[in-house]
Amino acid sequence: MAKKKNAFYAQSGGVTAVINATACGVIETARRHKDHIGKVYAGRNGIIGALTEDLIDTSKDSAKAIAALRHTPSGAFGSCRFKMKSLEENRRQYERLIEVFRAHDIAYFFYNGGGDSADTCLKVSQLAEKMDYPIQAIHVPKTVDNDLPITDNCPGFGSVAKYIAVSTLEATFDVASMAATSTKVFVLEVMGRHAGWIAAAGALASTPDAEQPIVVLFPEVPFERKKFTARVDRLVKRFGYCTVVVSEGVMDADGKFLADQGLKDAFGHAQLGGVAPVVANIVREDLGLKYHWGVADYLQRAARHIASKTDVEQAYAMGRAAVELSLKGYNSVMPTIERIPGKTYKWRVGMAPLAKVANVEKKMPKNFITRDGFGITEKCRAYLLPLIKGEDYPPYKDGLPDYVRLKNMAVPKKLPTFKI
Amino acid sequence: MAKKKNAFYAQSGGVTAVINATACGVIETARRHKDHIGKVYAGRNGIIGALTEDLIDTSKDSAKAIAALRHTPSGAFGSCRFKMKSLEENRRQYERLIEVFRAHDIAYFFYNGGGDSADTCLKVSQLAEKMDYPIQAIHVPKTVDNDLPITDNCPGFGSVAKYIAVSTLEATFDVASMAATSTKVFVLEVMGRHAGWIAAAGALASTPDAEQPIVVLFPEVPFERKKFTARVDRLVKRFGYCTVVVSEGVMDADGKFLADQGLKDAFGHAQLGGVAPVVANIVREDLGLKYHWGVADYLQRAARHIASKTDVEQAYAMGRAAVELSLKGYNSVMPTIERIPGKTYKWRVGMAPLAKVANVEKKMPKNFITRDGFGITEKCRAYLLPLIKGEDYPPYKDGLPDYVRLKNMAVPKKLPTFKI
Repeated sequence: MAKKKNAFYAQSGGVTAVINATACGVIETARRHKDHIGKVYAGRNGIIGALTEDLIDTSKDSAKAIAALRHTPSGAFGSCRFKMKSLEENRRQYERLIEVFRAHDIAYFFYNGGGDSADTCLKVSQLAEKMDYPIQAIHVPKTVDNDLPITDNCPGFGSVAKYIAVSTLEATFDVASMAATSTKVFVLEVMGRHAGWIAAAGALASTPDAEQPIVVLFPEVPFERKKFTARVDRLVKRFGYCTVVVSEGVMDADGKFLADQGLKDAFGHAQLGGVAPVVANIVREDLGLKYHWGVADYLQRAARHIASKTDVEQAYAMGRAAVELSLKGYNSVMPTIERIPGKTYKWRVGMAPLAKVANVEKKMPKNFITRDGFGITEKCRAYLLPLIKGEDYPPYKDGLPDYVRLKNMAVPKKLPTFKI
Repeated sequence: MAKKKNAFYAQSGGVTAVINATACGVIETARRHKDHIGKVYAGRNGIIGALTEDLIDTSKDSAKAIAALRHTPSGAFGSCRFKMKSLEENRRQYERLIEVFRAHDIAYFFYNGGGDSADTCLKVSQLAEKMDYPIQAIHVPKTVDNDLPITDNCPGFGSVAKYIAVSTLEATFDVASMAATSTKVFVLEVMGRHAGWIAAAGALASTPDAEQPIVVLFPEVPFERKKFTARVDRLVKRFGYCTVVVSEGVMDADGKFLADQGLKDAFGHAQLGGVAPVVANIVREDLGLKYHWGVADYLQRAARHIASKTDVEQAYAMGRAAVELSLKGYNSVMPTIERIPGKTYKWRVGMAPLAKVANVEKKMPKNFITRDGFGITEKCRAYLLPLIKGEDYPPYKDGLPDYVRLKNMAVPKKLPTFKI
């Protein structure tokens, strides 16, 4: 590692409240190792920026601006929903990546994303070896879905979980106030198409000290209408009200998304609805109860204003660890969060080989969901609670968070145009 | 005022993030005037608690618990959607109120709500005079809709406005990151059936320093589909993305709610949808753009975690002022927030006669909406900005806000049952 080489960093898939904290960790750590790492180039709009040679020179942004990434949600360099095809199907794309890396003297590849990007990262590493181009490919974990294997949890998840727990608590207090004469059921739709991790966080609003009537609908549990309305009915009779936290991915016994109810407008056009209004209508039809419903959508994963301190620290640590692992000569690995067993929550940075991460989806363990299918177990609570712990407020200016926008200045191109 | 009398306090209508701060102001101030005010009784579930003689003895809760109301959203004693009929239609209800007040030695009536409750408060005062029962009826302003007259703004609004401004900013950052390959338009539905104050707050996310592509749909401006999609198209072409903040009360030129599109499910049952999916579908049908949509619903008015400091202070001040006004002998009045003219925002407590408040709805001034109908003017920005200023975070415990639940112990009944 005598010669100084450049690094490439890209953000992939849905963004989070803390993916920029990871970017901050990567760039600040690289800047502390100027003897080994030259510039950090970021892909404009993720890996597409590498394919099209649309690179951002992060050195043009001040230390202050880079530090502000730590408290800024979203993907500062742009992300993308673009899955690289397999090596067999489109080897040319992978070769192009290597060409761009070679043209810009890039020997470090930091790819910040979920399962798909771990797979891409692994393939880049494999092909680079075949092509005899020395690169260290490090995957940096990020996903609100919390579905990556090996790592105890994924950066991005803790903050969504905190947002959903806090919002569920607040909305439950609200409906409790209104229930005597008005709304008795509040339905909140949350993200999570395949795994119920985010929905599970809604259950944290009910604590052993202060029980709240909360029903969680997980994608892992087939929706049974009668069983569900019986549960809501029971809670409303006991408490006077209840809150339903429903994952967007909830399906019926036939594996059909509950959200996909074939809604049509007055002209017969199909309408894309959420699952919250569907569940709310079920409550109305079967129980005749007044309801309200909300859909958190992007608000939940962009809510840096209520990010979890644990999450922010871990997101930053993953970025820093990625750079440090590369400097130690590692390739085809991903830094992980390891929970240290013990009474109080402690964690440390670990490492996993990419071959064991790529294309593996971590679902909620069976013993995290109560037997009735509507809540979380104590085991699940013990797992989730530390992840939402601590507040890490951004600075404010004139009543609004002072989020940074980088200059994102382009690196001059050296290669012919490439069509994706 | 030689003899010590009790006070009655009730919360009315939709609750807010700071109505309990007003309750805190009322109770703490009353406790500081024990020479004149005995106990503060709260109506369980608002005015219904007075009619049914279901009173809560707030003296049973500690100073610490009452202080915690300042940082707890929702209505701690329960609110209600119950409009008292006119004196002519149901004089018996008003007489019952006086009977309950007489039975519990109540000489102070603090009613915390919007326009309807101001009207009730006025009538109680009038009837008490006729019935020769001495009571001081003070209305305490509260409404997220910001539609009360005379007062510069309403407690509850500033915090919703802050939540919507922050959420719009965060979601816009999110969609900006995704736009290259995925979502280009984010639609956020906000409250405000008659007035666009809350929707207007979304426009605060775009600042003179950092312009954001935001389209606001106000209930005051009839929705024109072509004009709207042309605006979205233009913004997406210029910025690559945009955010639409749509008020639930947006109507078309015929005065029909946009949300009321006659949606039917697969069985032909009518479905109650929000306006966000309707607007999102218009974006898809007319422009073919990928979208996401969210509905803030209760989350926006319960979001004490991101309350405006200005709002919390004003909410508390209104409660304190209500008690102080009553001790000065005022009746049939409402404390108000007066903006003191000048370069920097300052405010003081004012007072308005209830006759001028009841049944008057304050709409957004015409010169607060831009001529194209999709944004706010500088005048509006100057009005709104101070109201969202400052943060007033609640304390946290185990990652969640430490909101209080009071004991809410009942006062023994003295009267026969009354059927509402």
